[in-house]
Amino acid sequence: MTDLAVETMNTLGKQAKAAAASLRMADTNKKNQALMLAAKRFRDDMEDILAANAQDMENADKNNLEPALKDRLALNEERVEAMAQGLEEIAALPDPVGAISDLVYRPSGIQVGHMRVPLGVIGMIYESRPNVTADAAALCLKSGNACILRGGSEAIYSNRAIAKRLRSAIVDAGLDEHAVQLIDSTDRAMVGALITAKDDVDVIIPRGGAGLIQRISAEAKVPVIKHLDGICHVYIDKAADRDMAVSIALNAKTHRYGVCNAMETLLVHQDAVDCLPEIIKQLLDKGVEVRGCAKTQAVNDEVIAASDEDWATEYLAPILSIRVVNDVQQAIAHIEKYSSAHTESIVTEDYSTGQMFLRCVDSSSVMWNASTRFADGFEYGLGAEIGISTDRLHVRGPVGLEGLTTQKWIVLGQGQIRQ
Amino acid sequence: MTDLAVETMNTLGKQAKAAAASLRMADTNKKNQALMLAAKRFRDDMEDILAANAQDMENADKNNLEPALKDRLALNEERVEAMAQGLEEIAALPDPVGAISDLVYRPSGIQVGHMRVPLGVIGMIYESRPNVTADAAALCLKSGNACILRGGSEAIYSNRAIAKRLRSAIVDAGLDEHAVQLIDSTDRAMVGALITAKDDVDVIIPRGGAGLIQRISAEAKVPVIKHLDGICHVYIDKAADRDMAVSIALNAKTHRYGVCNAMETLLVHQDAVDCLPEIIKQLLDKGVEVRGCAKTQAVNDEVIAASDEDWATEYLAPILSIRVVNDVQQAIAHIEKYSSAHTESIVTEDYSTGQMFLRCVDSSSVMWNASTRFADGFEYGLGAEIGISTDRLHVRGPVGLEGLTTQKWIVLGQGQIRQ
Repeated sequence: MTDLAVETMNTLGKQAKAAAASLRMADTNKKNQALMLAAKRFRDDMEDILAANAQDMENADKNNLEPALKDRLALNEERVEAMAQGLEEIAALPDPVGAISDLVYRPSGIQVGHMRVPLGVIGMIYESRPNVTADAAALCLKSGNACILRGGSEAIYSNRAIAKRLRSAIVDAGLDEHAVQLIDSTDRAMVGALITAKDDVDVIIPRGGAGLIQRISAEAKVPVIKHLDGICHVYIDKAADRDMAVSIALNAKTHRYGVCNAMETLLVHQDAVDCLPEIIKQLLDKGVEVRGCAKTQAVNDEVIAASDEDWATEYLAPILSIRVVNDVQQAIAHIEKYSSAHTESIVTEDYSTGQMFLRCVDSSSVMWNASTRFADGFEYGLGAEIGISTDRLHVRGPVGLEGLTTQKWIVLGQGQIRQ
Repeated sequence: MTDLAVETMNTLGKQAKAAAASLRMADTNKKNQALMLAAKRFRDDMEDILAANAQDMENADKNNLEPALKDRLALNEERVEAMAQGLEEIAALPDPVGAISDLVYRPSGIQVGHMRVPLGVIGMIYESRPNVTADAAALCLKSGNACILRGGSEAIYSNRAIAKRLRSAIVDAGLDEHAVQLIDSTDRAMVGALITAKDDVDVIIPRGGAGLIQRISAEAKVPVIKHLDGICHVYIDKAADRDMAVSIALNAKTHRYGVCNAMETLLVHQDAVDCLPEIIKQLLDKGVEVRGCAKTQAVNDEVIAASDEDWATEYLAPILSIRVVNDVQQAIAHIEKYSSAHTESIVTEDYSTGQMFLRCVDSSSVMWNASTRFADGFEYGLGAEIGISTDRLHVRGPVGLEGLTTQKWIVLGQGQIRQ
């Protein structure tokens, strides 16, 4: 960490803190107006935004960025329009700030309840996709938080172009322009300065590969909301509806491969192996490599032997490991040992077994007769998500507007004193 | 940190983790039974517990422990009985674990909601008062958490005697005895090992002086729930009911001096200085030293000039600083600058001013026409509290059973897959 990085971050941090103090009190109307204005500007300035993105794409070519990353980096009219619509959707969500709940009279005569308030200053660290700049800024703004954004250096021109529109919209809505600040430097020391700025930054939300997130978690002095891996399991119980089991297993694995809520290991009760031939056949037809325990290999010649490492791997690819277990207890024990506590699902028609799984499995999402692919802010009704948390404190699972707030106690009296 | 400390903590941590896994599923009945049995044992073994405490008191004499600490350390029949009743009260509280809330149908047909679950393993670090051993263990057990307790070395005999009864009651109720573990060593390196055991410990809750808590916050690798200071303010607005203002100001300062929710600074609107003569007279009569700004000094000769340091000091003593402010905005700005974000109260009959104060002041408790002394788990209806948090994440203000839990998402389907 260089002195310059610390100094720059100090300036950004102080500006963010001042903006957060004014945002805490901002009208819902003004926040929504800023989001609607920014959406309009994305559309009006479409050409400029695409030109900035073209510069990033040119550099990506020069630097031989891998195709998957280039795909995430690329903007076109459709993607910019989607970004604009994203802002409008967030504007349409209810404002969580200031909501008062659980206000009750206590025996002393005072009324006690909670008021929802913003967290303060949020540091976002992310890679490649420029739309995160718009999404994260919008979620932070709506929830009354100031944000400091640090996107990937490969997207710097796109991020600048997007942040510029956001900031001018914020100013035109009468809010503090420092509500959204982009770290306009590709210096890596700025990340170090951001995650240790504990006097000014209330929480860090990193989004990216496991390597990035591990480094941030290890070095941060500011609390971090994050998830590392998604090693998600589906368990097919002996009492599973077989058609449902096949359908959920295939959807959880093959709907999308590179996402954190995709299934990576399928657990099957020994009395439910009858559904395995169909599942494995369909997986192989779709080009999925199947690895398995000895009992799974006995079902189909093309199943490769799974090693212990397989159970602990997030493939994010068309690969699945399958294990046959003796009973639900063994399935739960396997999950306890290998799961990353992201999302697990049981398929069963048996009430007691389902209830036991729901209660015993300690992951951020636990499902019964549904595909793990539903673990998502939109599907859960949050409207939008800034990320997913597999931490235990503050917020777990998909993080939406409410996860970006905290509560304070309020007490209303008529002059009560302690006796 | 010594190797021995790390090794010992590793054993305690693994045992706690295993106990936490079984406690997660424990019947409410069994947990309550353990608490009731422990209460009975405290009463049955009164003599042994008092004898153990006598050993601590003897050492305290030898080591010339200061009288205030000796008072906190001392047990008698009344205090042990109060400990037993505390356990019975916690047994009588509703069990938060497993409660399902907000279960709604989503357009996809899945039901999505929250289930409340324990945090896991809680490390408690505290000083002197042996009753914390019973209170903390009981709150952790009821909320389904395993705990590792590290009391002050001056209370080691008392803590051992108390922990022994708790553990035997836990075993007799059919639960894992490692649900409650006392660090049976006065080696300071054990604290370092506990606060860095991030694979086994989910959260640290320290209770003690600001020095202890600062050290723990700086060195911990495990998340910490804490409060450092309680620099609490009362603001008397120009529209305050004068009798109420006098009553609340006196109660907030003089009800008890050494507590974190006592008022340390009184702010008075320039048009409400008419209530200051009475307040200052009564404070002086009670032996409170009054320090103040020039306008406060003009009210009474005995007021000492307050320095800038006074505004930033938690006296925990019969001393009060008073400042006359121009308006509510200046009061809020003063609080923003000097408050420790614990508890602030406004006295006013003016609706708009009260609402502004409630919304603008960003402390863990914000009050309107009530004494700051109400900031307390019992007064808020939590039944009991394990501490108070001035952190922003996870839990803010008094922390009871719910603050010792987190949530997981549950999804109930009938075979839904992502389209």
